[in-house]
Amino acid sequence: MDIKRQESYAELIVKKGVNVQEGQKVVIRADIGSAPFVRIVAKAAYDAGASQVIMNWADEVITRMNYLRADAEVFKSIEPWRVQFFKDYDDAGACFINIISDDPDLLAGVEPERIKNAAKATGIGLAEHRRLTMGNHVRWTIAGVPSPAWAAKVFPNLPEAGAVEALWEKIIESSRVHQDALATWEAHDKVFKEKVEFLNKAAFKQLSFKNSLGTDITMELPQGHFWKGGSAPDTKGVDFFPNIPTEEVFTLPNCHTANGRVVASMPLTYNGVTIENFELTFKDGKVVAYKAEKNEAALASILELDEGAGMLGEIALVPYKSPISEMKLLFNCTLYDENASCHFALGKAYPMIHGYEDLPKDEALKRGVNESITHVDFMFGTADMEITGITAEGKEVVVFAGGNWA
Amino acid sequence: MDIKRQESYAELIVKKGVNVQEGQKVVIRADIGSAPFVRIVAKAAYDAGASQVIMNWADEVITRMNYLRADAEVFKSIEPWRVQFFKDYDDAGACFINIISDDPDLLAGVEPERIKNAAKATGIGLAEHRRLTMGNHVRWTIAGVPSPAWAAKVFPNLPEAGAVEALWEKIIESSRVHQDALATWEAHDKVFKEKVEFLNKAAFKQLSFKNSLGTDITMELPQGHFWKGGSAPDTKGVDFFPNIPTEEVFTLPNCHTANGRVVASMPLTYNGVTIENFELTFKDGKVVAYKAEKNEAALASILELDEGAGMLGEIALVPYKSPISEMKLLFNCTLYDENASCHFALGKAYPMIHGYEDLPKDEALKRGVNESITHVDFMFGTADMEITGITAEGKEVVVFAGGNWA
Repeated sequence: MDIKRQESYAELIVKKGVNVQEGQKVVIRADIGSAPFVRIVAKAAYDAGASQVIMNWADEVITRMNYLRADAEVFKSIEPWRVQFFKDYDDAGACFINIISDDPDLLAGVEPERIKNAAKATGIGLAEHRRLTMGNHVRWTIAGVPSPAWAAKVFPNLPEAGAVEALWEKIIESSRVHQDALATWEAHDKVFKEKVEFLNKAAFKQLSFKNSLGTDITMELPQGHFWKGGSAPDTKGVDFFPNIPTEEVFTLPNCHTANGRVVASMPLTYNGVTIENFELTFKDGKVVAYKAEKNEAALASILELDEGAGMLGEIALVPYKSPISEMKLLFNCTLYDENASCHFALGKAYPMIHGYEDLPKDEALKRGVNESITHVDFMFGTADMEITGITAEGKEVVVFAGGNWA
Repeated sequence: MDIKRQESYAELIVKKGVNVQEGQKVVIRADIGSAPFVRIVAKAAYDAGASQVIMNWADEVITRMNYLRADAEVFKSIEPWRVQFFKDYDDAGACFINIISDDPDLLAGVEPERIKNAAKATGIGLAEHRRLTMGNHVRWTIAGVPSPAWAAKVFPNLPEAGAVEALWEKIIESSRVHQDALATWEAHDKVFKEKVEFLNKAAFKQLSFKNSLGTDITMELPQGHFWKGGSAPDTKGVDFFPNIPTEEVFTLPNCHTANGRVVASMPLTYNGVTIENFELTFKDGKVVAYKAEKNEAALASILELDEGAGMLGEIALVPYKSPISEMKLLFNCTLYDENASCHFALGKAYPMIHGYEDLPKDEALKRGVNESITHVDFMFGTADMEITGITAEGKEVVVFAGGNWA
């Protein structure tokens, strides 16, 4: 990808993604293989006024080696310094950029117990940082950059350099960087605001989802919930885009109320394992049955993480007619794939109910805020998705018809 | 460099360098550019029984960017997580491998105040870890791997790939990996043991150094001092080699006793700045005058770090006839260059006096143990170096004559 476009993309990440403020620290997590692009992001951060760029490097080759060869005990806890790392920069008011380039098969063949233990230990250890990010106390963003392994998975028939370049093109296009990126994103954001305003005004009590694939599920929305999409303000009122790209408008369900069946419309890659053709059946919020044609054990490992992992934590609406959806490309990466389709998440909710900060924990849970240690998106949107809302007065409103906004 | 030799070198680092024990954690610090070799080291660590490999990556491009562009305040303190990082692994009984590949010009043009502040903050923040490493409570080793920038500095007339390969050859040769590395190092270690035994038996009260370059200095050795060279046991009796390569036999001077003048015989590269043709004059242990033909300010910044930085902390004897010396090559890297020549260090001493652990701090200082936060080696050995020892009984013994062991 030519440097100019990479620079535009980096500027988008820095200015719209985390919206770096003068004098702010910027923490960047990335794989060492992405260094050439990451350095462009670091430069953009300084150009935007950052006081310091802190790198949090990973090397997926050694990450995989560790998963395969380290002592099993290692995965059951998280070292104090890793907790302190996030505390230091949360306390300093830093923003967090996550540049992802993961090989979708990174953890293939790793003992699932290790992955589960690591996810659990990290979830517990970094719970406070997760609370701050999910509650928008800190600004953060996730964006992708191709790695050879990821590109090979998406374009298996191309040679390495060709696959990387092709994935770069798709990332740039889906991230709307092909034209003046900052202006494009401002226009993009306006559309989100219209949809969010409509949904917040409607203040639906219940939503139901139905399609020909077999999804037929209803759930209530918590009292005082609100929807978001596009940019969001942090708790100090500074706007940021947590995901680049983003096409979704989302809120949380009352996690105790889902009833029915949801059939995934796309595979889910979780810790290097691709779960295919799966479905979940819910009763009073809880998964009471599940099956998957491929890698059912990985699906089970998600559901078993904790109580909230077997309940929903997010409802996200994405029109079937959207740039990523129209690419008809499986990115094998949630950041992109979730923006191709309506999706739910299992696990922790973004606490999008008014007054959440002042609610006692048990009251929030009673209202249906899922407090799991995990958060895993999965897609269920289709071209014939029908979504119906029921207002507090019992009025039915068609939200999606034929896969798109009604 | 062919993979087989890289594997031998990695095995040497793991088995002789830190001597990884079954179930031990291994921390590796390296630049991301060295990843291909570092992964070989990580694999060797697991093959030797490591329970976990923990990476501490740096990227010199972003390190330099930070030095040039971050807020000046950033360098005045060290984040708590960096202290915690070493505490976690010191507490866990880990060993530490440092793979260096630094661009000698990395910090060229950086405001010296920033470098000085960072060195000071790191020295203070990591004082406990430094105490544990210098006191052999933990096993650690330093070894080198070429980077294009370093190789270009050493072989400025070769194209990039050729320079890297040439530097690899010199590293492999100077590290004695060209033959069966483990056996070669066992034989190498025996020679050290003979010299160490001679010096420890002699138990010199005073040493004097004289050559035609103008060096003419005497200093006392602390009561109860001992010499080391080659492998050293950690405090639990497990042998390790702190440096690969190593050609030196060393101890500490009584830091209050140096009198005379020492003229450097090789340039000193300190934080990216090369100090050339310099000399120091000592009175009662303290530098009372100094000059350098080039980069005198950098020399001054070392001396000003703290009180101990202007006093000696190490005496190291290296014969003029040794493999690295005979290469007649300036590596621009202390790890190699210090093994080409007799050298002193300014700053912190390895506390090599019997019973040090039980000595009160003020008593150790009185005996002459330098407790600075820094430790900087500089070379003064020449082909006509004469070193004379004086025993407690006042007997004169020639230690070096004509640059070599007498």
